[in-house]
Amino acid sequence: MTTNTPATPTPDLTRVAAWAAPAAKAPLERTTVPRRPVGEHDVLIEIKYAGICHSDIHQARDGWGGAAFPMVPGHEIAGVVAAVGSGVSRFAVGDRVGVGCFVDSCRTCEYCLQGLEQYCTQGMTGTYNAVGKDGEPTYGGYSTHIVVDENYTLRIPEGIDLDKAAPLLCAGITLYSPLAHWKAGPGKSVAIVGLGGLGHMGVKIAHAMGAEVTVLSQTLRKQEDGLKLGADHFHATGDPQTFEKLAGSFDLIVSTVSAPLDFDAYLGLLKTDGTLVNVGAPEEPVSLNLFSVISNRKTLAGSMIGGIAETQEMLDFCAEHGLGAEIELIRADQVNEAYERVLASDVRYRFVIDAATI
Amino acid sequence: MTTNTPATPTPDLTRVAAWAAPAAKAPLERTTVPRRPVGEHDVLIEIKYAGICHSDIHQARDGWGGAAFPMVPGHEIAGVVAAVGSGVSRFAVGDRVGVGCFVDSCRTCEYCLQGLEQYCTQGMTGTYNAVGKDGEPTYGGYSTHIVVDENYTLRIPEGIDLDKAAPLLCAGITLYSPLAHWKAGPGKSVAIVGLGGLGHMGVKIAHAMGAEVTVLSQTLRKQEDGLKLGADHFHATGDPQTFEKLAGSFDLIVSTVSAPLDFDAYLGLLKTDGTLVNVGAPEEPVSLNLFSVISNRKTLAGSMIGGIAETQEMLDFCAEHGLGAEIELIRADQVNEAYERVLASDVRYRFVIDAATI
Repeated sequence: MTTNTPATPTPDLTRVAAWAAPAAKAPLERTTVPRRPVGEHDVLIEIKYAGICHSDIHQARDGWGGAAFPMVPGHEIAGVVAAVGSGVSRFAVGDRVGVGCFVDSCRTCEYCLQGLEQYCTQGMTGTYNAVGKDGEPTYGGYSTHIVVDENYTLRIPEGIDLDKAAPLLCAGITLYSPLAHWKAGPGKSVAIVGLGGLGHMGVKIAHAMGAEVTVLSQTLRKQEDGLKLGADHFHATGDPQTFEKLAGSFDLIVSTVSAPLDFDAYLGLLKTDGTLVNVGAPEEPVSLNLFSVISNRKTLAGSMIGGIAETQEMLDFCAEHGLGAEIELIRADQVNEAYERVLASDVRYRFVIDAATI
Repeated sequence: MTTNTPATPTPDLTRVAAWAAPAAKAPLERTTVPRRPVGEHDVLIEIKYAGICHSDIHQARDGWGGAAFPMVPGHEIAGVVAAVGSGVSRFAVGDRVGVGCFVDSCRTCEYCLQGLEQYCTQGMTGTYNAVGKDGEPTYGGYSTHIVVDENYTLRIPEGIDLDKAAPLLCAGITLYSPLAHWKAGPGKSVAIVGLGGLGHMGVKIAHAMGAEVTVLSQTLRKQEDGLKLGADHFHATGDPQTFEKLAGSFDLIVSTVSAPLDFDAYLGLLKTDGTLVNVGAPEEPVSLNLFSVISNRKTLAGSMIGGIAETQEMLDFCAEHGLGAEIELIRADQVNEAYERVLASDVRYRFVIDAATI
């Protein structure tokens, strides 16, 4: 913790190996991208693992519009500090660290000051597909190295393997934040809709928080997995009887799916004062009967990742409870195939790229 | 407070004067309805005033289906106790009392036990257009007398005139409850959408709670009224610039309108962690882009009247702050005309029937 000497020779930061989409919908391919010199408050991270998030695919294919190419996706990054700037106080070479969905924010607005950088009024700086304060494009984690301000760098505790930790930086915090905010815990009945990369972390975290956890999945295909991950109950939403049987059952439902659900039906599963939080969302508008929220003071809410302090809290919580993601480790040259498998929901439960193969 | 002697001779409870809709969409007409004998825990109320709520019209015209006729509407009732049952401990003859939207509930479910009788799992017993535990239909406040269990009877403090108090029993509590639940108060920026019977009470109550209050109304037609009622700001939602100017402004928005709003636009007016509560609602489903709640952890919620204890708290709060409804007092034979004027939004801000004219 006291040395500033690099563990390995500093690479040529103007040409760092990466896998990038050269254009919208083009397959990803090996290339190099520049990283900025390590500034006073920067940490140079040797990336060990990078998770593949569904939103990587959306953005690489310009599904949300406004994408910039070449694009190096990846905002579930786990690695080791390779060098630090002269003003860095919180990290030292060799430290196990992570980077999530953003690498900067305005630092002065009411939300940044509250530790809610993800809701920065100026807009957070995305880890990739964004422009940094230096005016240069940001490139993500499908790469061997990244340079990040220490204030946007997370510490990964010893209790979690780095490969299993990588997906926590997006999938983990995306579920932890609403579960913590809406107070999942002992005596609370929590449902997780969808058992994918996000949902499987929701089950693990809600269970570790002490809640009674139910998985709501289209079919019973993943029932055995769900129960192993910590769910107490598992129900198929493809069976209409599920919505009758479970009416008024839950304090909190977290939906991780991007399919357009029948929201009135899901709201019917909540108790009075219950909350349905969406962390996944369909791109098209959904239909809602307002009586579904009025008649029992229910709320329909949304949540997006978490702030830096809360992300650190989540990593510490996961380490304390021995929680990592269930992963399938792949080589970088398998990324295009992995994308297709993610789109086909054929992954249990997160692909993670071994950065040594980049 | 110690006498059980009636102030006036007890009327023939088998034939109490009332105004009723004989069938769906038929005009209301004078008739008589039976009231049950005053039971051990009952209070006989000589009704002095009954407010006209928009939902009276919906139900009298069977707009929601399942209506029973003849129907005596009215769930904003203010009057004086005329007799009490032998077991009544909380009220005495001569007390000023009120009755709101329900006159009974199961009393044993988790919500009744929490004082949230309006969300009773067995369903509350509506003050009219419902069936009581005795199997008999309930008849509402457009009548000279009503018999109600003391546990569902409210005390109207001396500080409020009975005519101005009547609308508090529905319009008042409908706004007070969400304003209290979502913590309107000093330092909070609250918007009230719609300045009608509900909205005008919302402005008064939110102002008295210490919040900074904005009225969002279709036009500026009622601006002068709004500011007099206690609003700090008044904006026309018919002007699209309003949504740009006020983006990210409010902690809490309470919508009282039943028109299908552009909910994405209204959610855009909330700060991070803000809540849009609907107490009015269109009958048809609305459209919602979930990113409107996800991107700043916003919530879309609903709320329906309040429990008995909270309704008493609201009446005490209104008395303490000198708040009553703005009313137009009418004779019972003007009720059909009043209904048309309510539908045309031609009332400032609540019609109240003088029960002496029934």
